[in-house]
Amino acid sequence: MKKIILTGDRPSGKLHLGHYVGSLANRVKLQDEYEQYVMIADVQALTDNFENPLKITESVFEVACDYIAVGLDPAKTTMFIQSQVPALTELTTYYMNLVTLGRLERNPTVKLEIKQKGYDDSIPAGFFCYPVSQAADITAFQAELVPVGDDQLPMLEQTNEIVRRFNRIYNTDCLKECKPYLSHASRLVGIDGKAKASKSLNNAIYLSDSPEEVRQKVFSMFTDPDHLKVSDPGKVEGNVVFAYLDAFHENKEEVAELKAHYQRGGLGDVTIKKLLNETLQTMLAPIRERRAALNKEKILEMLRDGTAKAAKRANQTLTQVREALGVKYF
Amino acid sequence: MKKIILTGDRPSGKLHLGHYVGSLANRVKLQDEYEQYVMIADVQALTDNFENPLKITESVFEVACDYIAVGLDPAKTTMFIQSQVPALTELTTYYMNLVTLGRLERNPTVKLEIKQKGYDDSIPAGFFCYPVSQAADITAFQAELVPVGDDQLPMLEQTNEIVRRFNRIYNTDCLKECKPYLSHASRLVGIDGKAKASKSLNNAIYLSDSPEEVRQKVFSMFTDPDHLKVSDPGKVEGNVVFAYLDAFHENKEEVAELKAHYQRGGLGDVTIKKLLNETLQTMLAPIRERRAALNKEKILEMLRDGTAKAAKRANQTLTQVREALGVKYF
Repeated sequence: MKKIILTGDRPSGKLHLGHYVGSLANRVKLQDEYEQYVMIADVQALTDNFENPLKITESVFEVACDYIAVGLDPAKTTMFIQSQVPALTELTTYYMNLVTLGRLERNPTVKLEIKQKGYDDSIPAGFFCYPVSQAADITAFQAELVPVGDDQLPMLEQTNEIVRRFNRIYNTDCLKECKPYLSHASRLVGIDGKAKASKSLNNAIYLSDSPEEVRQKVFSMFTDPDHLKVSDPGKVEGNVVFAYLDAFHENKEEVAELKAHYQRGGLGDVTIKKLLNETLQTMLAPIRERRAALNKEKILEMLRDGTAKAAKRANQTLTQVREALGVKYF
Repeated sequence: MKKIILTGDRPSGKLHLGHYVGSLANRVKLQDEYEQYVMIADVQALTDNFENPLKITESVFEVACDYIAVGLDPAKTTMFIQSQVPALTELTTYYMNLVTLGRLERNPTVKLEIKQKGYDDSIPAGFFCYPVSQAADITAFQAELVPVGDDQLPMLEQTNEIVRRFNRIYNTDCLKECKPYLSHASRLVGIDGKAKASKSLNNAIYLSDSPEEVRQKVFSMFTDPDHLKVSDPGKVEGNVVFAYLDAFHENKEEVAELKAHYQRGGLGDVTIKKLLNETLQTMLAPIRERRAALNKEKILEMLRDGTAKAAKRANQTLTQVREALGVKYF
């Protein structure tokens, strides 16, 4: 039997190359090896976007399109919408009893996010408690593996603490601990060279961008501001074009040679931008092709089927949890 | 159209005379005037009994028996089990985004309970957040009235804050504010004269006690320890027999005369205990009769029907809430 792997995205906009290199490309490989669930986490996204729900709900469909476009196959990967699996909120309710406020306050990931968001003294209870909701997501599908970066490890620790506590108090083994599937993909920088690519900074190349949009973004990329003449030596560090070539060009040797050439002078920005543009257009071509074959009905049908399958799986776990608690009367 | 009233009990043991005089007797009257929902709040009871779920889940059936025995009529009152209405946990999830941690910390009722329970630094998140879950209960049934004591008013304020915030942010009027239906019934003292009657202190007369158990408890009641001879003047304050006569004897004049007689001397404890025993046995007789006519199947059927009706009503509200949020895709 294949191991179960659970992953997902907060739907707060269409997906970009950062998502592709950070997780999507990997998921396309993982779906052959694992029983893969991919959750569109609208409920979780609402915890810090509750004042702007349209941003979230309108992105659900776009994210689903991106999934199919990159090659996730509904026959291998169960893609579903979190809010449409009510068992998850019921599990969350019972798990909330097993976590103290102090424990949630000490969660390093949440602590950092609270600071970044400037919540200060007005932390929404829903946001504060989202690690408990994540524990519900992971355990509902009995996921053995969860792809995460290092910064998300505290979330899995919290989940496993809940699992152990539940199984011990209610004398059961119905919940399973999970393990991280560590991803070592570094974060993709924005085309302006600032921090990571993101929608809010308007510095990302989207999977759904047209060939012309991609070309324009590549040619506007930040390189080395001191590299004025082609013959000048140029810097590779902080040069976005090379960061993208590192991430997307298949021939690592060729990239190494280009870097050396650029550093000693004689290689122009236009040349490397042309190469990156060709690289990205080639990579995006099959994604565009699959997207062109999609229509709203197909996507909705895929989401409906995936969500029904996910709900069935989550309900099995919920039934076991209710039995362990004795919350079962009829 | 009748106004909707919502009330309920945490099922943590069978119900006693304190419940009867504090709420049950009143509910029997209210069911003629209002559309009444009575919730057996097992999920809420689990928030501070999660380590001992059997105490809660095994009480659900007993509480339902007590309801029918005191005269709640399934044709007039919808009795249901909280955990079996999953829409409530889903509403709670969305409301959690609208309440800050600081606001929950300032809730006077929860503050006091945290102190009483000695939670200190290990406050379970589920217990801490139960006012949000109460808001879900109240709004799910669009309850206009909620019977409460003064000490529960902060809970309704919290609910109405969530209602106003939800309606404002999501530009809707689908949630309704509620009003307290203030009960002025004083708390019934335990038969030992200590604080209030409660299961944990083993000082309560249960609605399901046999005639002999009731008689024994009445004759063991704390009176006036200095009232040694019948001819001695006796104290009425702190005398449990008079507290119960005040609560249950229908002829207030007769009780006033007895008190005066007791105070000036010449009225023995046995005489007043006999009177109280007769009073309680008379009051309990029809309750016992209805209980004797019950069987497990009838109670389960009543709970199943009530819960189905409650779930239908709660789902209507959930549908409106989802629409307001835009969490609706298919």
